[in-house]
Formats: sequence, C-alpha cells, structure tokens
Amino acid sequence: MSEPLFDTLALVGVGLIGSSIARAARAQGAVRSIVATARSRKTRARVVELGIADKVTETNAEAVEGADLVIVCIPVGACGAVAEEIGSHLAQGAIVSDVGSVKASIVRDMGPHLPDTVHFVPAHPVAGTEHSGPDAGFAELFENRWCIFTPPPGTDPQAIEKLAAFWRLLGAKVEIMSSEHHDIVLAITSHVPHLIAYNIVGTAADMEQVTQSEVVKFSAGGFRDFTRIAASDPLMWRDVFLNNKDAVLEMLGRFSEDLAALQRLIRWDDGEALEALFTRTRALRRGIIEAGQDTAAADFGRPHGHED
Amino acid sequence: MSEPLFDTLALVGVGLIGSSIARAARAQGAVRSIVATARSRKTRARVVELGIADKVTETNAEAVEGADLVIVCIPVGACGAVAEEIGSHLAQGAIVSDVGSVKASIVRDMGPHLPDTVHFVPAHPVAGTEHSGPDAGFAELFENRWCIFTPPPGTDPQAIEKLAAFWRLLGAKVEIMSSEHHDIVLAITSHVPHLIAYNIVGTAADMEQVTQSEVVKFSAGGFRDFTRIAASDPLMWRDVFLNNKDAVLEMLGRFSEDLAALQRLIRWDDGEALEALFTRTRALRRGIIEAGQDTAAADFGRPHGHED
Repeated sequence: MSEPLFDTLALVGVGLIGSSIARAARAQGAVRSIVATARSRKTRARVVELGIADKVTETNAEAVEGADLVIVCIPVGACGAVAEEIGSHLAQGAIVSDVGSVKASIVRDMGPHLPDTVHFVPAHPVAGTEHSGPDAGFAELFENRWCIFTPPPGTDPQAIEKLAAFWRLLGAKVEIMSSEHHDIVLAITSHVPHLIAYNIVGTAADMEQVTQSEVVKFSAGGFRDFTRIAASDPLMWRDVFLNNKDAVLEMLGRFSEDLAALQRLIRWDDGEALEALFTRTRALRRGIIEAGQDTAAADFGRPHGHED
Repeated sequence: MSEPLFDTLALVGVGLIGSSIARAARAQGAVRSIVATARSRKTRARVVELGIADKVTETNAEAVEGADLVIVCIPVGACGAVAEEIGSHLAQGAIVSDVGSVKASIVRDMGPHLPDTVHFVPAHPVAGTEHSGPDAGFAELFENRWCIFTPPPGTDPQAIEKLAAFWRLLGAKVEIMSSEHHDIVLAITSHVPHLIAYNIVGTAADMEQVTQSEVVKFSAGGFRDFTRIAASDPLMWRDVFLNNKDAVLEMLGRFSEDLAALQRLIRWDDGEALEALFTRTRALRRGIIEAGQDTAAADFGRPHGHED
C-alpha cells in the first residue's frame, strides 16, 4: 500500500457510488480517514453499522470541515443546494468533486457557490449497478471503468492530476473532456438507453392482452435485460433527464427517426435491409468486449445451473 | 437416468438451440440416438468434430427417416420449405416440432406439408444467448426456462404430453397457448426489445458528434447491455420480424406512443411523473427475480475483479 494521497475524504451522500468510493478508498489506502454524511438518519445509521467511514456527521457542513477531498455523491438535482451549504465551510486548497451523470448542470449549479480557494473538478465514474443504497456498494465497482473529468477552463492542472491519481488507485481510467461533450456522449451511451428501457417496461405493464404473469414468465426472451436497467434508482434518473434535457431530447429524436425507418422496413418486408442493420450492430459489440467494457461470456455469465 | 422417451431424435439445424437440445438430450438420456443435419457443410463437419450427434446426414430427408421425434431448429423463414422437403420421409406416428420464436407463421408454413400420420406440435423454448452456431450450445440452456407449445386444435393430447415430458427432462417448464397469443406475448417480451436494442446501437453508430471509440469506452453506463442483445443472430431475427409483422408493428406503435409521452414529460420538466414511472418499473423487476427468470446479483453477476 502506498502513502495516502489525501488526508481526509469527505463524502456527502453514501449510496451505491458513495459507499463504493469509501470501500475502495479504504481498500487501497488512498486516504487517511473518511468522513461521511447522508440526508436521511436511516442511511447515516446504516453507514455507522457498516463501518465504512471513520466518522459520520449529521450535517454536510460538519462533514466537509477540514477535508482536503470532498466528493458529493447525490442525485444531480440536489448538488447546487449542497454546494451552497458547504461553500463557506470548505478548507482552503481542498479539491471538490462529484459523481453526477450530467456535467454541464453540475458546473452551472455548483460552481457559483464554491470559493476561489478550492479546486472544483467535476467527475463522473461511468460505473454502476441496478441496486442503490449504502449496502449496494463494493470496492471493485470502478475497476477497469472510465471516470470522466470535466474541469472548467482554468482549473489547476495539479488538482486535476491529484484527483486522477485517486481514481486510478480505485481502479478507474481517467478521461478529460468538456462538460458539454460529456453530456452528449452520455446521452447516447447511457441516458437514452435507460429512458427506452424504462419506457418499454412501462409499455409492457400497460398491455391489456398480455398478463403481468406472462410478461414475467417469458422475460428471458430479452425483456428481463431491460427490466434490470429500468430498476435503477428513480430519483437519480429523474434528475438526469431533467438536467440533460437538450442532449437527451436530441438523441431521442434521432432514435425515434431511426425506429420509424426500421418500422417501415418491417412493414414493407425489406429483409435485406434488416439483415444488413443487424449484422452491422454485431461489430460494435465486438469492440466493447475487446475494450474490456463487458464480458463475452454468454448471457453475462448468468449461472446456467438451476438458479434456486 | 430414466428410460429414453424417444428412440431417435432428428435435429434439422444445429445452431445454438439445436446443439443445446442435442447436448441436453444426451446428458439426460432422453433419447437413444441423435441424428443431425445442417444446411452448410462446415456446420455438419463441426457437429461431427464436436461429437454431439450419433450420426450426421447430408440431407434433411435422410435425417428424419425413421425418427420418432423431429425438431426443426432453423430460422422461422426457412421452416416451410424444410417441412415440404421432409414431409414424405417422416415415419408414421412421429412427433414433429420446431423451436421458432414466431408460431402462427410456423403453423401456417409447416402445417400443410406434414402428413396426417404425424403429430405436429410447434414449440418455442424461451431461452438463448447472444452467441450462435453449434459451438455456442450447452446442456443447461433450458433449465428453469419456459417452453411454449402451440399445438393446432385437435392435436393428439398424448403426443403433446410426450413432447412435454421431453422438454421437462431438459429442465424446461411447459406452457400451452394458441399461436396467436404466443406471438403477441413474445412481441412485447422479446421481439420489440430486440428491435429497439438493434435500433439504438444503429443510432449510436451513426452519431457524428460522438466517436465510435467513445461509444465503446463509455458503454458501461447502460449501452453495453443493448449491444449484447443487438449481437444476436441477424438471420434469425430478420425472420422473426418478417413473420410476426402485425404483432410487432402493433407493439411498436404502443412503444412509440409511450415514448412520445415520456419525451413530453422531459420537455416540460415533469419530474413527479418521471419519478412515478421509474418507481413503477422497479416492481416488475422484482417479479422477474422472484420467478427465477433472472438473478438479483448486481450487474448480472459480471465478475467484479479485473477482467483481463
């Protein structure tokens, strides 16, 4: 284990991502101590029980006091108010970051509340599962995953590098881009996929010719994979769509256009064009497996013995 | 191991499903011997190498000769021609079945070519992975999965029960319904999910503001799960959409309507309605896990250590 990179890590919010950071930072000896806080009394009590932080405080202001690294791990819609709350309590020279899935709104909402004496480096670890809450986290969540930084122009390069070293220690790879570009890239690789998963699960739930029990029973034909995605944290995703509205609506427009074209191919029995599209999409899959962003194991390596 | 249910199983087509049936039938001692054939010389040679059949024939007619169970395991669009080819070679009293993902078209295309001396029991095992070909199969594929039978009215109940016993021996659970109802249920639980997965992967591949390398790198945010589904066999899926056109177009219409409504909620910042939908979809997920049709393990139990 190397020398800790930071003295005190303050985590505001200890859900899936926050608690995974706590576990990974401790496992890697990335920080000397961890202070955590959460809005709900229940979560705070659970964090104490889990023992994943050295100290649990009641307020956000207390949590960040004296910390040299502060990471806000809450739904993006709540980040502005939290920045306002902690702004005047931040230690001089502290690095302030977040884990939000939208970045332009984070820069817009948090930036104005942070004093010039701290370094603001917005970040987004592209990793997660469909589970939420402090119990859902695990130290390996970020291994071989990308963490995207979107530092505003003029951010101290040393602060960026120090936060990058922290994330690398947690197993992640770091990429830097503008918050605007981030929001477009994530709209197509994450936000719209989630939206259409939520949508088809909703459509299926509303069908009158098909019973819910049939939808559940025969879900192994593809549907179950969508339900997994559509089981993600509702509050987090509500905030993503409200805060990345423009990019999401733009991508959704393209998706709907393409879907209308596909629908027309089916209506007019254009088997050749269908086959050509379905063959093309296979190639992208290979790229993802080669890049280590998914496993080639059939069916995600679901256990193939009896599952009960 | 129990007494074999059938003397000779003939498999026409030995891809993912056919080769899984061969492996499972042998593992369970469900049949005395297995005869297999495939259209391509390469596949036939591979089946000989794999040793998963007792005999590999060059023609479909030879394969079915004398078999008391014939299962056609090829894309649905090719089933009519194969039925015509094998019709006059089928043994008296044989059970003829298939594994197609569409059932009304199978009844329509195969039925007229089969003599009255055989029992036609169309079937659809709702199981699969994104891989194809004889090497992709495995004996456990059907365990705890449903196999839907859609026997035409008047089919001999004893033949249905005998085929059901075969599938149960392979680990599956059997459900009987009309071919029309099957096609509606599968349109929403399998066909439309595949179609929108193919569609979004196509949309992402066409984006000019986002590079392919970015799509691949940041796919862990949800997109990768769609690419898995969109990596399924192109020929098989082309045939599914062409042969279940009405139900797919009907479901696609509902999906698009719902998506337009969702798009409007985002445009008008209706966070409450978004949250309500996202909360509702979580419940369906729980039903699927409770029914054993997916595992609750985060991220499908993808390995969480380093994956290289």
